[in-house]
Amino acid sequence: MLDAVTEAKLKGADVVCFAELATCGYPPRDFLEFDDFIGLAEASIQELAAAADDIAIVVGSPSKNPVIEGKDLHNSVYFLADGEVQHIQHKTLLPTYDIFDEYRYFEPATEWNIVEYKGKRIALSVCEDLWNLGNENPMYTVCPMDEMMSQQPDLMINVSASPFHWNQANERIKVMQANVQSYQLPLFYVNQSGAQTEVIFDGGSLVLSPDGKVFDELPYFEETLKIYELDEVIEGGQVQQQAKDKMQLIHDGLLTGIRDYFGKLGFQKAILGLSGGIDSALVAVLAARALGKDKVRVVLMPSQFSSDHSVEDARQLAQNLGVQYDIIPIEPIYLSHLKALEPHFWAKSFGLAEENIQARIRGMLLMSFSNKFGNIVLNTSNKSEMAVGYGTLYGDMCGGLSVIGDVYKTEVFELCRFINRDKEIIPDNIITKPPSAELRPDQKDSDSLPDYEVLDQVVYQYIEQRRDPQDIIAMGYDADLVRRILRLVNINEFKRHQTAPVLRVSTKAFGMGRRMPIVGKYLA
Amino acid sequence: MLDAVTEAKLKGADVVCFAELATCGYPPRDFLEFDDFIGLAEASIQELAAAADDIAIVVGSPSKNPVIEGKDLHNSVYFLADGEVQHIQHKTLLPTYDIFDEYRYFEPATEWNIVEYKGKRIALSVCEDLWNLGNENPMYTVCPMDEMMSQQPDLMINVSASPFHWNQANERIKVMQANVQSYQLPLFYVNQSGAQTEVIFDGGSLVLSPDGKVFDELPYFEETLKIYELDEVIEGGQVQQQAKDKMQLIHDGLLTGIRDYFGKLGFQKAILGLSGGIDSALVAVLAARALGKDKVRVVLMPSQFSSDHSVEDARQLAQNLGVQYDIIPIEPIYLSHLKALEPHFWAKSFGLAEENIQARIRGMLLMSFSNKFGNIVLNTSNKSEMAVGYGTLYGDMCGGLSVIGDVYKTEVFELCRFINRDKEIIPDNIITKPPSAELRPDQKDSDSLPDYEVLDQVVYQYIEQRRDPQDIIAMGYDADLVRRILRLVNINEFKRHQTAPVLRVSTKAFGMGRRMPIVGKYLA
Repeated sequence: MLDAVTEAKLKGADVVCFAELATCGYPPRDFLEFDDFIGLAEASIQELAAAADDIAIVVGSPSKNPVIEGKDLHNSVYFLADGEVQHIQHKTLLPTYDIFDEYRYFEPATEWNIVEYKGKRIALSVCEDLWNLGNENPMYTVCPMDEMMSQQPDLMINVSASPFHWNQANERIKVMQANVQSYQLPLFYVNQSGAQTEVIFDGGSLVLSPDGKVFDELPYFEETLKIYELDEVIEGGQVQQQAKDKMQLIHDGLLTGIRDYFGKLGFQKAILGLSGGIDSALVAVLAARALGKDKVRVVLMPSQFSSDHSVEDARQLAQNLGVQYDIIPIEPIYLSHLKALEPHFWAKSFGLAEENIQARIRGMLLMSFSNKFGNIVLNTSNKSEMAVGYGTLYGDMCGGLSVIGDVYKTEVFELCRFINRDKEIIPDNIITKPPSAELRPDQKDSDSLPDYEVLDQVVYQYIEQRRDPQDIIAMGYDADLVRRILRLVNINEFKRHQTAPVLRVSTKAFGMGRRMPIVGKYLA
Repeated sequence: MLDAVTEAKLKGADVVCFAELATCGYPPRDFLEFDDFIGLAEASIQELAAAADDIAIVVGSPSKNPVIEGKDLHNSVYFLADGEVQHIQHKTLLPTYDIFDEYRYFEPATEWNIVEYKGKRIALSVCEDLWNLGNENPMYTVCPMDEMMSQQPDLMINVSASPFHWNQANERIKVMQANVQSYQLPLFYVNQSGAQTEVIFDGGSLVLSPDGKVFDELPYFEETLKIYELDEVIEGGQVQQQAKDKMQLIHDGLLTGIRDYFGKLGFQKAILGLSGGIDSALVAVLAARALGKDKVRVVLMPSQFSSDHSVEDARQLAQNLGVQYDIIPIEPIYLSHLKALEPHFWAKSFGLAEENIQARIRGMLLMSFSNKFGNIVLNTSNKSEMAVGYGTLYGDMCGGLSVIGDVYKTEVFELCRFINRDKEIIPDNIITKPPSAELRPDQKDSDSLPDYEVLDQVVYQYIEQRRDPQDIIAMGYDADLVRRILRLVNINEFKRHQTAPVLRVSTKAFGMGRRMPIVGKYLA
């Protein structure tokens, strides 16, 4: 931020803006319960304030609630100028749903004041505070901007950490347009960019003219510094909107998610198993693009149940990507396991245990590379199989980060076709052959699961739309099938509980935003 | 509940009371977001109401918020009599900290009314509503009982789901005594009993006389139906208090946790690896006591690094417990892994990867038994090693339930001595020998970790007490050691993210009550 302040000063800016809780990252979660952590955020504010000469700085940071009653902290936006804190406005509407836990930590604002700087009256707000326009959001009863209008502001600045899902940018633009149309004020909407474990922030900050038009839409998934003349924004006219393609956005979001997970942990190298199937193929492409092909290593681990084409397809993809690949046949290890278990499994026929052993040997080999060379294992499970528990715990469900755990199987196909749109990067055979786990002879996903077109729709209605079973059945799906699917979703919570964080690209991902009982009997 | 109503009627009770959210279980988490689920709770209320003839029923259940503004639900206590719902009082103080997420779902009460039945005026409240006496709890600004006192109640009934930690019963009694002393009314305090995944409810319902004395303290970790004459309670005098021994409570709490995890999932059989060390020994004893010795199977999986006494000690324990045990030497499997990896690990010396392979082979063998025979694998990690990441992901960190993940190593010793207090159940050698993972020759925990006495204290100050690093150092611990320990705790969040649910016996357990960033750089 100090670098950006310097750059903004050089470019002659009067005010430079940063995102919500920018001093400590969003979401800081239970770090907020440590005074020491809050002290570090306050020290950052002091450092920034010292740099605020000839420029004002707007930045989000936690602040201590001086009153004993209520939560210990506020989620605040600071206005720093002339070397000191000039104004603090607290956040009023504290999202406490999905991935958000703000009321766990923060006390809402009960006072709203604008700040004056260089003759302009500025209404500051934090993220959700602009999402209750006209008091139409049923979750809230206060509209902070309404409270500030009596003080006749000249412009609005909102600092946000608005998490990405593939349709969020469209929704955000509509909400911000409605705000400027209502208040007839220019709005500088500053959003976080970058990922924090599972939560991705897509940037795409907005500048809106009082007539409701988007004056400028900043790049997505990028930190940007750009200067605007307030008069020009007020005058309007320079209308810009970026194209929003679902697959492009998911693709770019996942690259950000991978890149920042590695970058923020201080790791560089990834490893994954390449089965010849479509899920691991997609993750390999995304990893190579996010980290660089020299940072990604893949391992082909065929068993006696792998088809010939699987190894060939996987090898071809590795060559297309230019990533290091190794081939380790797992049959000898598999046989050593079976031999050790033989006295105990006597007379039991081949089944789930034997299938899972293969998946777990592969997980173990990847983890061995991870331990030996410092590569983080990427998990390759998709949302459809995570939903119904079609995966082996500690086997193919292992890994430090789930890259496509919020991407349905039908979307995996779509994303692969998007990647191949100009050139065959993922061998066509990987995309066209019927999905199979290849853990027993001639196995196909369709032996155990409904068609992905149906499965994905039913799971989507249940998870993203939170529709009741009878409503999903009323949409025309077979009643027994719906009940079977929802039951599978609910009884497999124990598996999802133990998987890697899932990069969130939809409105409801597995992970911190979806909190389900493990022993609950509902629909089970 | 219907059975209890029948029994209460037979015994001539006027009112029978059940716990908070008893219709749907506590915590129902995001099940609450489904109308269908709420409908099932409402149907239970209707069924109970139909049974409420010649008796009144007090029971906790979610109810729909009729107002559009605010959250969709209330956390309510129902008063059912004469076949119908006579009164509903909503909960006011909604815990949103630690394991609690109530404000995620519920709108607080803004109205408080008593209900009259058979000439008695009853003040109903839900759990936390009695935890802000005199408005002294800094989290809240309303005291619901104060609001009801103007309506001159004759008695108080509180329905609770107050989660167990080993000192919670003592705290609860003090708070409830303070309430009756303040309002000079008898109190029937009804607490949930039983476990829901990681959260254990210890029962221990209370009946208090207006003079502040505990008239009766019901059994812990047991469902109980007991009849009281109101006049006798008001008169007081029958003072009872149960002994509260920390180790006895943790022991009983863990048995409840194991029993209900299996019972509610519909499983009966457990399996675990017995290493000859103290952690797995303790878990084996607890499992055998919770589930029955014929439902517990243990596997001894020595490697070439296991000491002779380890197998002997483990075998002796299995025999003491009378549980089925098998011995599977893992060296052949280990060698098959090394052989497969040799071309790739060439010239790298024995290290963490090779250690972890052993732990993961053991995890895989246990999971194979689980898949073949339907036993749930019990995790045997203790809180100290979970804190600092001294364990192998997908290896010894595997399992469906972490039994002692909230028990520090020093408490593990204490608990084993408690179990052996009358008779040597756990072979003494297991308790007295220096802890070792036995993954390389002559390995000891003390090679990698500080003494457990110091480690546990520092971790306790950081996790349970949420003390800042400088405060812990100021307590007299070595500064470098404190920084090293706290750093280990923070950088190992990624491992804890992927472990089994941990039975909670302290004020701050790993799991849903402790929400930490994985990529956060604080102290890392």
